[in-house]
Amino acid sequence: MTRVAVLGASGYTGGEVLRLLLAHPGVEVVQATSDQFAGKRLDYPHPHLRGLGALRFTPHEQLGPCDVLLSCMPQGGLHQRWPRISELAGRVVDLSADFRLEDAEHARWYRKNPRPAGTPEFVYGLPEWTAAQLPNARLVAVPGCMAHAALLALLPLVRAGLVKPDVIVDAKTGSSGGGATPDRASHHPERANALRCYKPVGHRHTGEIESITARLTGQRPTVHFSATAVPSVRGVLATVHAFAARPIDESEPLRALASTYREKPFVHVVRPNASASPFPEPGPLLGTNHCDLSVDVDAERGRIVVNAALDNLVKGAAGTAVHVLNLMLGRPETEGLVFRGLHPL
Amino acid sequence: MTRVAVLGASGYTGGEVLRLLLAHPGVEVVQATSDQFAGKRLDYPHPHLRGLGALRFTPHEQLGPCDVLLSCMPQGGLHQRWPRISELAGRVVDLSADFRLEDAEHARWYRKNPRPAGTPEFVYGLPEWTAAQLPNARLVAVPGCMAHAALLALLPLVRAGLVKPDVIVDAKTGSSGGGATPDRASHHPERANALRCYKPVGHRHTGEIESITARLTGQRPTVHFSATAVPSVRGVLATVHAFAARPIDESEPLRALASTYREKPFVHVVRPNASASPFPEPGPLLGTNHCDLSVDVDAERGRIVVNAALDNLVKGAAGTAVHVLNLMLGRPETEGLVFRGLHPL
Amino acid sequence: MTRVAVLGASGYTGGEVLRLLLAHPGVEVVQATSDQFAGKRLDYPHPHLRGLGALRFTPHEQLGPCDVLLSCMPQGGLHQRWPRISELAGRVVDLSADFRLEDAEHARWYRKNPRPAGTPEFVYGLPEWTAAQLPNARLVAVPGCMAHAALLALLPLVRAGLVKPDVIVDAKTGSSGGGATPDRASHHPERANALRCYKPVGHRHTGEIESITARLTGQRPTVHFSATAVPSVRGVLATVHAFAARPIDESEPLRALASTYREKPFVHVVRPNASASPFPEPGPLLGTNHCDLSVDVDAERGRIVVNAALDNLVKGAAGTAVHVLNLMLGRPETEGLVFRGLHPL
Amino acid sequence: MTRVAVLGASGYTGGEVLRLLLAHPGVEVVQATSDQFAGKRLDYPHPHLRGLGALRFTPHEQLGPCDVLLSCMPQGGLHQRWPRISELAGRVVDLSADFRLEDAEHARWYRKNPRPAGTPEFVYGLPEWTAAQLPNARLVAVPGCMAHAALLALLPLVRAGLVKPDVIVDAKTGSSGGGATPDRASHHPERANALRCYKPVGHRHTGEIESITARLTGQRPTVHFSATAVPSVRGVLATVHAFAARPIDESEPLRALASTYREKPFVHVVRPNASASPFPEPGPLLGTNHCDLSVDVDAERGRIVVNAALDNLVKGAAGTAVHVLNLMLGRPETEGLVFRGLHPL
Repeated sequence: MTRVAVLGASGYTGGEVLRLLLAHPGVEVVQATSDQFAGKRLDYPHPHLRGLGALRFTPHEQLGPCDVLLSCMPQGGLHQRWPRISELAGRVVDLSADFRLEDAEHARWYRKNPRPAGTPEFVYGLPEWTAAQLPNARLVAVPGCMAHAALLALLPLVRAGLVKPDVIVDAKTGSSGGGATPDRASHHPERANALRCYKPVGHRHTGEIESITARLTGQRPTVHFSATAVPSVRGVLATVHAFAARPIDESEPLRALASTYREKPFVHVVRPNASASPFPEPGPLLGTNHCDLSVDVDAERGRIVVNAALDNLVKGAAGTAVHVLNLMLGRPETEGLVFRGLHPL
Repeated sequence: MTRVAVLGASGYTGGEVLRLLLAHPGVEVVQATSDQFAGKRLDYPHPHLRGLGALRFTPHEQLGPCDVLLSCMPQGGLHQRWPRISELAGRVVDLSADFRLEDAEHARWYRKNPRPAGTPEFVYGLPEWTAAQLPNARLVAVPGCMAHAALLALLPLVRAGLVKPDVIVDAKTGSSGGGATPDRASHHPERANALRCYKPVGHRHTGEIESITARLTGQRPTVHFSATAVPSVRGVLATVHAFAARPIDESEPLRALASTYREKPFVHVVRPNASASPFPEPGPLLGTNHCDLSVDVDAERGRIVVNAALDNLVKGAAGTAVHVLNLMLGRPETEGLVFRGLHPL
Repeated sequence: MTRVAVLGASGYTGGEVLRLLLAHPGVEVVQATSDQFAGKRLDYPHPHLRGLGALRFTPHEQLGPCDVLLSCMPQGGLHQRWPRISELAGRVVDLSADFRLEDAEHARWYRKNPRPAGTPEFVYGLPEWTAAQLPNARLVAVPGCMAHAALLALLPLVRAGLVKPDVIVDAKTGSSGGGATPDRASHHPERANALRCYKPVGHRHTGEIESITARLTGQRPTVHFSATAVPSVRGVLATVHAFAARPIDESEPLRALASTYREKPFVHVVRPNASASPFPEPGPLLGTNHCDLSVDVDAERGRIVVNAALDNLVKGAAGTAVHVLNLMLGRPETEGLVFRGLHPL
Repeated sequence: MTRVAVLGASGYTGGEVLRLLLAHPGVEVVQATSDQFAGKRLDYPHPHLRGLGALRFTPHEQLGPCDVLLSCMPQGGLHQRWPRISELAGRVVDLSADFRLEDAEHARWYRKNPRPAGTPEFVYGLPEWTAAQLPNARLVAVPGCMAHAALLALLPLVRAGLVKPDVIVDAKTGSSGGGATPDRASHHPERANALRCYKPVGHRHTGEIESITARLTGQRPTVHFSATAVPSVRGVLATVHAFAARPIDESEPLRALASTYREKPFVHVVRPNASASPFPEPGPLLGTNHCDLSVDVDAERGRIVVNAALDNLVKGAAGTAVHVLNLMLGRPETEGLVFRGLHPL
């Protein structure tokens, strides 16, 4: 059994990481940290963990040695504790934005939480694209939820040379991506029926999509990213609008996506008419580690639209962390991630 | 492997029965019937079943022999096909209201779907109370979702002699209990923000709660039942208001509930201060077979309030059907029912 | 023009009071106070007030003289500033719970915010029942939103002698009743799908319903009140379950309600089959000063159910304050309150 | 008093047209037609019209003469009844798509509901842009709700020569835009948490935005339109992503929008920091005839983002119809349209 500790385990991502790990046959959760809930049982802030063992939170500072550390700390939290944490944990999977980007790119987008000099490079943990690097990786950064959806949609098109450099990503997101800390914008009467483009330009996932696409395909797109809050708790829908590099119909981009993900257990390309629910949408994917994609083409105007839906807390965070962990440990890829969702929900 | 067929499998309850059975280690789903979707794969109407096998719906009339039949037909659907179905299936678990009540009671509440003369009696499948009868039962009727919640709350109080006969049950319910067929009341613009007591008096679960309580405790309460639609898809909250038979504080009813359900894996009595979410609510229970209960007492006014929360499609239907099946087959009680829920949702 | 000041005007009730008063032909809003938003325009926290004048908030302590003060301060806020405020304002309409109950009753239910000795008595501002006292009243307390709904439902039955003393009130409420201050329970991911009986016993509206019923009908019921949070922002549905004092059918309680409210512009008794939306529900009443009532009787079991729906921020607060103001000033009862609602919403 | 008839008045748009007209001081509603509800009172399907007069629906075929006809018939409904209706009504305001486009464009996008030969041309009723044509217009077509939002955002940029021809419009919409007829996609359990791009390409509003922009500015953009269903009943948010024709910062597009709408009572350009709710969103605009716009620029990448929020049933349909009517009749522009919205909602 691999001994895993979860740092910063009282938030929403931490709760989902714990849910998955506590039921994972190859892993023992040896520690979960939270300053706010230190001494309380895991199910105190996480009602869905009731009955899943009697572990209690310890303060962050009491983190002990472990085989793998999964960090759910907010931005900067892992930076600040580096290199001490690196010494305690044999391997680290980080769910924050601290180590996703290379130094220069990071410095540009995260000026308020600069990365200390000398921190090592992390592998980008996008399993459908970087699985080969994971078995030997000691340090892995899990993608941001909206960047994750956009990359799964965009990468096959860029790699296949189907699209021009300018790409619009119009991402829609529920409230849970904002975390467990209340504020005015997340106050229920203000958020319940919200439909607002809260970050039309300047979102940090812009840099993540651009630089990771460049790293994985060799071609750097210009990403035009906007994020809109919708009246949901969980779920991301990323709509990628790209311009065809040459006249095409639907078959080419569909083939690019389908061939990329044919063997991938968690990514599915939705075909029209295959279902009474023919569009990618987060609903039936909530709680699962799956991402659904669709492709549509306006041949006359030269636009390719790829929609990507996922659960921001699972495929967009905790589930991918476990997926990464499975690959790092050489375990079956889908272990602990077999839940297939609920409908209707 | 027990060979199970699901009759009427294209609705919401059918979808959840299939979800649970397709992942159940002791069961093989040999057939699922639907006239509307005959020939289509199970995941055509049920997006959450994608990847779970390649079974296709067959018309109801093509039902073949099986060890156990789970029927998700609407009211009267099983009646009409009796006794032919009884001959095809070794054992039957029915999720409709057709066989919950004894003849006279049934005739009174279900005048539009009278039970044909000569149909046999079914065991009432409320596992926490009737488990002893299930291993030998050939025919079992699963409780109605709101009656189920109310009975779990009320039965311990009645059995312990703590309450007067007049009991109010104020049940709140999501829209999925109304099934998968669209109508004006379920049209999204009309239902999305609905908060309406759609059945203040005369609800059939009145008779179910009264007669089952009489059957299981020997005492027949007078149940005053009302049902209110709330803006949710899944979930029931039944608030049971009872009057104390004698002056009491919280400890007695709490003890009655706690002792009744101490060994029961799916029913939990919520204690104040044990959690940051101290009230029974369907949210963290969605997708699970669990019911949460709480007890509060107004000693001055002599009222006992028990709240019961569950997922109407799982604990209130499909999950209990599988729970019943496990007990009928002598398998572990929680087999196939281990999912613990999502939070936030 | 009557010169009106609004104390504590930055919360949700304050926003609705301002919305109604700024469009009221007989009133001039001379001041609106808020410490948090002092110096900001009214539309800074209240987006729906944009374009309705250029007034800015002043700190509470800078309140000046006015003809009528409408106070939207939280509990204790008016107490603390008494008697200074009484000297500044010719007349006062208070929307908090500070002055609804008589001394002894208040002391019992509001121990944490005791009323200072010597504060005068306020008239209870329930216009359908206390209109006669309002023209001459100097001090008026507006009812609590859930008590308001329950009283409109219950009072006619008690006055007509139709019901036994024990009455259950099962109230369902949206999140806006909790005010504009964020906390964990109101954080969108926690509240969005909430269905929880957050106050099964001990709610202060118990005392308000009991004592006001006694004051207005001469008979004191024993009220068994529970409050349940539902997934809405606005709206209250109060379900009153009462036991018939003698065998009756629907006609008597229906007549009691209908005759009570026949001439009342803001209370309507819904008749079955008169509409495709035959149940009282807050939806079409949002933004309006209307309350819808329905009556149902289970003659066999002797129960009368009255449902009352209203918008907690309007009929349950700001709208009634304006209604009271109209009556105090001898103006037309419906002035400034003619908006009839939106459907669907 | 202008005598107005409403054709097809039982749907959601019809209900809002009636709400506005019944309270309009310059208009008398002489007839409202519905085959489904013929003989019923207006408030039978429209609960928010209770108390607003005793008019009853007549069948479509019994439409009589009137000064102005407002038609809320679905697509093709007015075509089919042409030219008879033209003879009955002195002037016609049509809310369907039947007469928005010129012949060739219409034939291309509405092949299933072709326009009969010989029908006359309608003025496009976008008051902020075509007001000058309305006083003398006999026939006016009201814009589609999503096209309306997109046009208000896009037209100033195109006219000012600020953007390149390729423009992405990513529109988000509630369920009420789909009308009052239930189907599987609008069934509450399926629609409540929907977040799906249901029309990624090929939406008819593509043609409307392109051709009207060409008509009003002389320049025809290539519009890349996608529509996404979000979990709301009312409201549209159109996010227009355009590419700057030359290097610019925020000030130029902001000036283009601000100067266009400075004198327009129903369109407002939201400035950052002017409010605690700094983004255009439908919530506080529901029930009103207002549209909120915002401008953001990513100078580095050369993208201009304009967000436009409105209530699809009011500014996007019924409210604009009344606005158009006011201008046709030479009445004050905002007459009958003064409601400023609710918050929170």
